[in-house]
Amino acid sequence: MKPTVILDPHFRILELLFHPEELAHLHSFAEVIWERNEPMPAEELAKHREDVEVILSGSWRHGEVADFPRLKAFLELGGGFPSPDSFDYETAFARGIRVLSCAWAFGPAVAEMGLAMALASARLLVETDREVRVGKANWSHTELGDPFLLFDKPVGFIGFGGLARSLKPLLAPFRCPISVYDPWLTDSYLATQGVTPVDLDTLLTTSRVIFVLAVPTQSNQALLGREKLELIRSDAVFVLLSRSHVVDFDALTEMVLAERFRAAIDVYPEEPLPLEHPIYKASRAILSTHRAGAHSEAYRTIGQQAVRDTEAIVHGLVPQEMQIAQPEFIRLRG
Amino acid sequence: MKPTVILDPHFRILELLFHPEELAHLHSFAEVIWERNEPMPAEELAKHREDVEVILSGSWRHGEVADFPRLKAFLELGGGFPSPDSFDYETAFARGIRVLSCAWAFGPAVAEMGLAMALASARLLVETDREVRVGKANWSHTELGDPFLLFDKPVGFIGFGGLARSLKPLLAPFRCPISVYDPWLTDSYLATQGVTPVDLDTLLTTSRVIFVLAVPTQSNQALLGREKLELIRSDAVFVLLSRSHVVDFDALTEMVLAERFRAAIDVYPEEPLPLEHPIYKASRAILSTHRAGAHSEAYRTIGQQAVRDTEAIVHGLVPQEMQIAQPEFIRLRG
Amino acid sequence: MKPTVILDPHFRILELLFHPEELAHLHSFAEVIWERNEPMPAEELAKHREDVEVILSGSWRHGEVADFPRLKAFLELGGGFPSPDSFDYETAFARGIRVLSCAWAFGPAVAEMGLAMALASARLLVETDREVRVGKANWSHTELGDPFLLFDKPVGFIGFGGLARSLKPLLAPFRCPISVYDPWLTDSYLATQGVTPVDLDTLLTTSRVIFVLAVPTQSNQALLGREKLELIRSDAVFVLLSRSHVVDFDALTEMVLAERFRAAIDVYPEEPLPLEHPIYKASRAILSTHRAGAHSEAYRTIGQQAVRDTEAIVHGLVPQEMQIAQPEFIRLRG
Amino acid sequence: MKPTVILDPHFRILELLFHPEELAHLHSFAEVIWERNEPMPAEELAKHREDVEVILSGSWRHGEVADFPRLKAFLELGGGFPSPDSFDYETAFARGIRVLSCAWAFGPAVAEMGLAMALASARLLVETDREVRVGKANWSHTELGDPFLLFDKPVGFIGFGGLARSLKPLLAPFRCPISVYDPWLTDSYLATQGVTPVDLDTLLTTSRVIFVLAVPTQSNQALLGREKLELIRSDAVFVLLSRSHVVDFDALTEMVLAERFRAAIDVYPEEPLPLEHPIYKASRAILSTHRAGAHSEAYRTIGQQAVRDTEAIVHGLVPQEMQIAQPEFIRLRG
Repeated sequence: MKPTVILDPHFRILELLFHPEELAHLHSFAEVIWERNEPMPAEELAKHREDVEVILSGSWRHGEVADFPRLKAFLELGGGFPSPDSFDYETAFARGIRVLSCAWAFGPAVAEMGLAMALASARLLVETDREVRVGKANWSHTELGDPFLLFDKPVGFIGFGGLARSLKPLLAPFRCPISVYDPWLTDSYLATQGVTPVDLDTLLTTSRVIFVLAVPTQSNQALLGREKLELIRSDAVFVLLSRSHVVDFDALTEMVLAERFRAAIDVYPEEPLPLEHPIYKASRAILSTHRAGAHSEAYRTIGQQAVRDTEAIVHGLVPQEMQIAQPEFIRLRG
Repeated sequence: MKPTVILDPHFRILELLFHPEELAHLHSFAEVIWERNEPMPAEELAKHREDVEVILSGSWRHGEVADFPRLKAFLELGGGFPSPDSFDYETAFARGIRVLSCAWAFGPAVAEMGLAMALASARLLVETDREVRVGKANWSHTELGDPFLLFDKPVGFIGFGGLARSLKPLLAPFRCPISVYDPWLTDSYLATQGVTPVDLDTLLTTSRVIFVLAVPTQSNQALLGREKLELIRSDAVFVLLSRSHVVDFDALTEMVLAERFRAAIDVYPEEPLPLEHPIYKASRAILSTHRAGAHSEAYRTIGQQAVRDTEAIVHGLVPQEMQIAQPEFIRLRG
Repeated sequence: MKPTVILDPHFRILELLFHPEELAHLHSFAEVIWERNEPMPAEELAKHREDVEVILSGSWRHGEVADFPRLKAFLELGGGFPSPDSFDYETAFARGIRVLSCAWAFGPAVAEMGLAMALASARLLVETDREVRVGKANWSHTELGDPFLLFDKPVGFIGFGGLARSLKPLLAPFRCPISVYDPWLTDSYLATQGVTPVDLDTLLTTSRVIFVLAVPTQSNQALLGREKLELIRSDAVFVLLSRSHVVDFDALTEMVLAERFRAAIDVYPEEPLPLEHPIYKASRAILSTHRAGAHSEAYRTIGQQAVRDTEAIVHGLVPQEMQIAQPEFIRLRG
Repeated sequence: MKPTVILDPHFRILELLFHPEELAHLHSFAEVIWERNEPMPAEELAKHREDVEVILSGSWRHGEVADFPRLKAFLELGGGFPSPDSFDYETAFARGIRVLSCAWAFGPAVAEMGLAMALASARLLVETDREVRVGKANWSHTELGDPFLLFDKPVGFIGFGGLARSLKPLLAPFRCPISVYDPWLTDSYLATQGVTPVDLDTLLTTSRVIFVLAVPTQSNQALLGREKLELIRSDAVFVLLSRSHVVDFDALTEMVLAERFRAAIDVYPEEPLPLEHPIYKASRAILSTHRAGAHSEAYRTIGQQAVRDTEAIVHGLVPQEMQIAQPEFIRLRG
């Protein structure tokens, strides 16, 4: 008899995550329950409580972990581990229930956007396009202003998790020395990864491109306050990719408007950002609409990884692709 | 006694090409003549005609090659080999005089801009920035329209010279299969380079990103006429990097305005392009101002390579860095 | 107050694992107990039972896991996870105690030896050295016999764990397509790693170089019996690196003596292997003395990784370097 | 009408160089003359003197270059450019006749052998195999003697031509810093290649593995005399790959017998080396029989490159694969 797997993707959309061949593969080794875009009703869930081995869902809204006697794994399809308020990690860890997040599936798409933004900002691509259309661009080859090549420039990563690991190989052909600030990793480990561990102030004062890649946590809210932002070089590009939570966005807005440095921004304190927000006037910013990761190819990766890890789990193998909730990580994040 | 070297950089600017340490190195092994930004006057040149071993100059305006009995090399600092109308290649080749071009020094800067344009166009970076500032951007995560990731997409190179060789490693982390059309290289050789030789029609119909990287020649003028451009996929990005000479620019303009495909353009039939040109209205184009290569870091590379190759030449060694004029190449280019 | 860490390296030797600077770093953040080459006596251990947070040891001989109320991690320094007979994994997993193995530290040294053996065998390096000294070698350039180049040859990995992951990058410049047999990983995952998942018979019949890299388990004992070994190509090289447990060594010996294929062997059913063993007569074998991993540089890596992971653990961070005991893996291994 | 190409491979063997498909491709664009293993007789050659555009041959024995009015190229298939005594380079250069050597085709095979020798010597592979068969090997894991891992060790290249460029990528996964001594290249150029230019003494005193990769020239005969060899570290491996011409072989023999350092040797002052030569007694040497490059796969590469470059030449394109005789190089080599 095949193991029971609940597939309850809401708020994600089944068809965006799973191509038909992926679902066929899932059905080949599992009894798949629900498989619809509406959230699974409680009474439906109750029918399978005793049997279910794996739950895949856009979020955990399935009650007490302790109520699932055969549960081996919860695979979240939303983009981040559930909060300890909604999910009982202690029970899960004590019982060896795997909690997996799809967050890493967004890595390549976000990293690509990060490189795109860094290059476009360094080379003044957006600004030039804007100016040339109104007759203001500089065609001269000698007054070069401040564009710069990415080759060999010092780069700083704030956070060295999944996004950073996707971004690092894209930068490799540019030979940029990479400094990293990540309080969740030891300096000695970072040194083994071909990056230089530094404190935050050093990173901000030395980097030519600063990538904000940190997962939002209780302790990093507004980590980059006004005082920190003041440390950034005037010839630097500040790329805000992971979450605006990490930044004092008002201070950032003021400084970019004052042309203290250039910025490329994909995430905001409020989304959509109201049209009256002053950042929209910043000519030295590249503004995107939280679309670094939100791409059908990333969604497809989520589906593929979720099916492959489900396959591993129901066969008693170690899941290899999605991010595994490490107890230390969950505690640190808070 | 040190060998005589004429340094007559006009129309390039001495200080942009050569940093002081580079000049000091040059002086350490050569008697350097002229070294000013004004073109060297004929009477000044005449004084050194008998002795000069190497001439470095922004262009060849130095008369008959045959008049320099000890000339070993001409290093052009402008960006392309002199025309056979102005430079006597036959004498140079027969006498073993090296003719070197600085064109390859622009490779990394142009390649970086090419990647920046491809990524910005694929991910709708410029369009989104433009639209979000007027409240028209799409913030939804599910109606994704047509942006695409570069990862694994088929890419086509029109021309496989210096630019292509600088661009290829930048694309490597994206794992794009690369098709090449280059009539100056045999298919069997291209196959050894990790690219797929194809005819032009195949390249245009299959590539998701098309990079125009060809050197302008007599035979490739308007190679990409309207009929060829019609072959391009509607979901493709057309990146015009090397010279507009290769394209029917009117046809390209019409098609981009009609949103037949997206384009990113750095070079134009006329520069600056007059403000009334219709391409300025194309919302699906990224427009730059012939600045892919024109960067101080590229100029600096020219100076470094020119000094190192001069050093090799005056010591009887093979020059290793600038592009060597190959007789076959000069004949083909016409 | 610093956390208590027991360092009881026996049967490893303290000085081989830890350079003074490593120990100094350990002392900087931990109260280090014992730190001697003799095994820690039970009465000494008893004194620290209540306090100890991390135990580093050559093997687990420390009694019941349940008796250590504050234990956060056991780092084994011997080369493989303890047997479930000696270590209570259930309690460790339920309490979130990390069990880490140093096995991966041997990866680079073993992988290097594997490449050395494969190249030496493919190019007949040992055989030629042996023959040339007695006047029997072939100096002719045209009767080339059966040496082969590794470039582009199909390679098979039996096992895709730590050793395989260290070996794969060393093979990269040779462009070998790699087939993998590993029943603990899903095919779909292996396909994402740039290798081709195959069944064992396919691997044996198609590979030009076969690397045995599997961890010994209850289920893979003599996996490569006579019948399987018969499938190997006559022009193949069989490299036995991880453990002889996986092979019917008598059958292997017979076949190598009969020159059915070539072999390079580092591990034996008995070590030292008695001098009367027939494999010593095999001229087509390269014989080593279980020294692929046993190198001071690997020992030093163990010490470095153990200190860095201890540092992470006592600070509540995720350990990043040593191999983490995954419950599924421990169950599979048996 | 197809261009006339003479294929006169002696002393190479037609069938070893050219697979049938290669010959078919050659015939598709050329009128191929001779194509036999015996040297082409003078009277046969005379018949084609007026027409021949390309000559491919194991050596130049075809008289005066000036006697071939339509000759565009001579492709040598032996392994090195002809001596100026036998070939009139001045006429060839003045007329723009391409002189191409197949030497680079041996690069991958020789580089692979070089890596095999370095690894086998560093890890004591040959010595251990020899000793274990007579009961003398060390099975202990703690008395490790002097084997070393290649990872991160300083490596020296004597010569940075074709062999060096094939060897460098094979060493890349081992992260060895590479020092180079090559008087034919400027220091400033070498620095651009990711290697460190050094003088010969520095190279010898600092490198853990020394690769002799230099082409024999008039000026480098016995470059490595006794005094230079004395500079080598006692824990170094000396790999003699290109030609023994570069070394005082008697001094080398004495020092290796005295166990001053280890060596791996593929080339000798006399080949086959007489059996009474003392080097045969050196237990710390790995001895090979000039077979680093002499492999059917290298011969096949010669044929492929020769056909592809012939194709380029008869079509007026620049040949891209074989080594082009540079006038400076020919003069330096003497």
